[in-house]
Amino acid sequence: MSHYQPVCSDCRTVQRDPAALVCSACNGYLEFRYDYAAVAWDERFKGNMWRYWPLLPVPDPERISTLGEGGTPLLQVRAYPDFDRVYLKDETRNPTGSHKDRSLSVGINHGRAMGARSSIVISTGSAGISNAALSSRAGMVSVVVMSAGSPPQRLYPMFALGAVLVEVEGEIDIMVEKVTSACREQGLYSNTTTRSANPYQSEGNKTVAYEIVEDLGRAPEWVVVPVGGGGTIAGVWRGFRDLEAMGRISALPRMIGVVPRDYNALETAFDTGMEEREDLLALPFHDAPPSILVKLAHPYPPDGMDALGAVRASQGFFLSVSDAEALNAQSHVGRSEGLFVEPSSGASLAGLAKLLGSGRIGGQETVVAVVSGSGYRETFLTMEQRPLQKRSAALEELPAVLARAASGH
Amino acid sequence: MSHYQPVCSDCRTVQRDPAALVCSACNGYLEFRYDYAAVAWDERFKGNMWRYWPLLPVPDPERISTLGEGGTPLLQVRAYPDFDRVYLKDETRNPTGSHKDRSLSVGINHGRAMGARSSIVISTGSAGISNAALSSRAGMVSVVVMSAGSPPQRLYPMFALGAVLVEVEGEIDIMVEKVTSACREQGLYSNTTTRSANPYQSEGNKTVAYEIVEDLGRAPEWVVVPVGGGGTIAGVWRGFRDLEAMGRISALPRMIGVVPRDYNALETAFDTGMEEREDLLALPFHDAPPSILVKLAHPYPPDGMDALGAVRASQGFFLSVSDAEALNAQSHVGRSEGLFVEPSSGASLAGLAKLLGSGRIGGQETVVAVVSGSGYRETFLTMEQRPLQKRSAALEELPAVLARAASGH
Repeated sequence: MSHYQPVCSDCRTVQRDPAALVCSACNGYLEFRYDYAAVAWDERFKGNMWRYWPLLPVPDPERISTLGEGGTPLLQVRAYPDFDRVYLKDETRNPTGSHKDRSLSVGINHGRAMGARSSIVISTGSAGISNAALSSRAGMVSVVVMSAGSPPQRLYPMFALGAVLVEVEGEIDIMVEKVTSACREQGLYSNTTTRSANPYQSEGNKTVAYEIVEDLGRAPEWVVVPVGGGGTIAGVWRGFRDLEAMGRISALPRMIGVVPRDYNALETAFDTGMEEREDLLALPFHDAPPSILVKLAHPYPPDGMDALGAVRASQGFFLSVSDAEALNAQSHVGRSEGLFVEPSSGASLAGLAKLLGSGRIGGQETVVAVVSGSGYRETFLTMEQRPLQKRSAALEELPAVLARAASGH
Repeated sequence: MSHYQPVCSDCRTVQRDPAALVCSACNGYLEFRYDYAAVAWDERFKGNMWRYWPLLPVPDPERISTLGEGGTPLLQVRAYPDFDRVYLKDETRNPTGSHKDRSLSVGINHGRAMGARSSIVISTGSAGISNAALSSRAGMVSVVVMSAGSPPQRLYPMFALGAVLVEVEGEIDIMVEKVTSACREQGLYSNTTTRSANPYQSEGNKTVAYEIVEDLGRAPEWVVVPVGGGGTIAGVWRGFRDLEAMGRISALPRMIGVVPRDYNALETAFDTGMEEREDLLALPFHDAPPSILVKLAHPYPPDGMDALGAVRASQGFFLSVSDAEALNAQSHVGRSEGLFVEPSSGASLAGLAKLLGSGRIGGQETVVAVVSGSGYRETFLTMEQRPLQKRSAALEELPAVLARAASGH
């Protein structure tokens, strides 16, 4: 007997095919049931997320393939003197530098146990790098499909990690459909990080919540998450819900979703009480301007309804930040906390600053902001926004130059 | 009473000044004594190296400043079918992507406890990034001194992490002396990763050994370490020695130092039985050609005698690898294990392959290779060596293109 059961979130059909990625009856999204009473963390796994496998849909927990995803630090922040309990969940510490390793690793372990020899993702960013690394580790081929014209330096790690890169001319939305149907036709494993493409991977995000609760001993009052496609915030929320259902926490956090100012479909949908996916898709975001927050700038977040549902259920809200605010926060967290993050994580930190400044939060409440990805993978992009500064000195001037520099002048 | 005692490694004078970085009596290098019988790991620190603080020279263990250094995974390698027990110690998982975080964090915590407001390092690479991050986290100013002409993308993370970058025209050897004396003159804290500049930082490397032993339950038979300045391999060896002295391991590993082919002063010194530092400095490495292994290419390794001593005491040896071998191994570990490492870590892996191919190792012996730094920080450099490859497809060709790519063709 498996420790989980896939169920259609729509028609509630219990699935018999352990390999199916959509409902066999209605093509609906799958969700997963676990026997909460039987769950115990697996202490054989130290310092990574696999101790939580009893709440992850992996068919073969005795043969997990892993680079040690998760187990990331919760760092206390001292930059806000009026707030005692502000933390960063430092997801830059994952194997490929982003939280995507959690979800893609669940997908890879599901696919591998189902006999897949390869996995396909659509991505020009973190998911592509992550899928490449985890596929290689599992002895599988990774194929990353992307729209033409992505910066080669962003793509390079995928190539270095053995992935086959396929550039396609065309719109991303059409591409998702085409790739998903091509995968089904050809019997290829789809690991794209949307619930419609693969509901297994989406469960990996829950482990962020498990780790936060384990470190704090309880749930925080507030959790700030950068939102692109919407799958991450929905998954983290499900993680807290699991723990509540198991009686391990007595209160749930409020989830704050941070979106880019010019791609704030979810903020608009939330503020106007939107209920239907069709209404979300009808919002006028066709011609939004370019944004440095590439990983969040989804005109039509594919898991948007899940994200909306999570934020509403948690009594949270969405807020939006500008590129300038995100870059500013990125720079600030580097100087004040020692984290070099990507601009999209800067958005989360700008959202954190806004939340703390909003007057809605008490000084004794606990706030956790998710720092989703490291900056090292895209140094060239940040450099374009804020050029490198350095000083020159002749050897004989060194004592004076050092003394001045060390005093911060 | 402090849990450690600084002692001169030369004249054996016990030091009274807890801030001194060299012997007060003879200017010799300092080493540290610990009361082994009193040592217990501090279980309050989870998933990082600070559980080992009782064997680290930090004056104020109740107020450690940390980003969660260490606690990195030991990954079993399946690429060598004749060997069952080959592991990679994945130091790319440190906060700034390299093992330098361990040593520099000990230095920062020593400096901070001594009242330093800033710290100075000489570096164009990992140590500079690490010092920048850890200084910011500790609320200190980081000043990084470097020779002119380093690639801006390699330097950028230091700037993003708030460091002041000072470029100096001149030879690196003269620079080290000038910076060290300037620090003393100005009362500035020197955190450069050589034992002569700062013996405190060098103790951080010991924690690599502690973690390996904790994961394996014993010491491996062989440990492969990439060697640049020489401080890392010497520190890792001291870690194993500590555990032996404490009775926690019954056998010591043999240490294999891997150096670049054209900068193999230590291999030469080892093979010729060299005993004196002066003889090492007299070796003819003035005009060695440029190497992609920038982090290892020291004509005159500053901690070379320590490295030699460690390798000899362990009954190990040195071996050298070419740039091409290192790049090849870098590419291989990406495709086979899912790690994107820097070229200098490729050297360690090329050394591992040579060792396994040498016939000196039994199939049941345990071998650990230290993977010192991540490739994400220097993608541009690896790209120059091995250009990105990708395919293009029209949307309608996707099913066929994906099927071909997924089958590895």
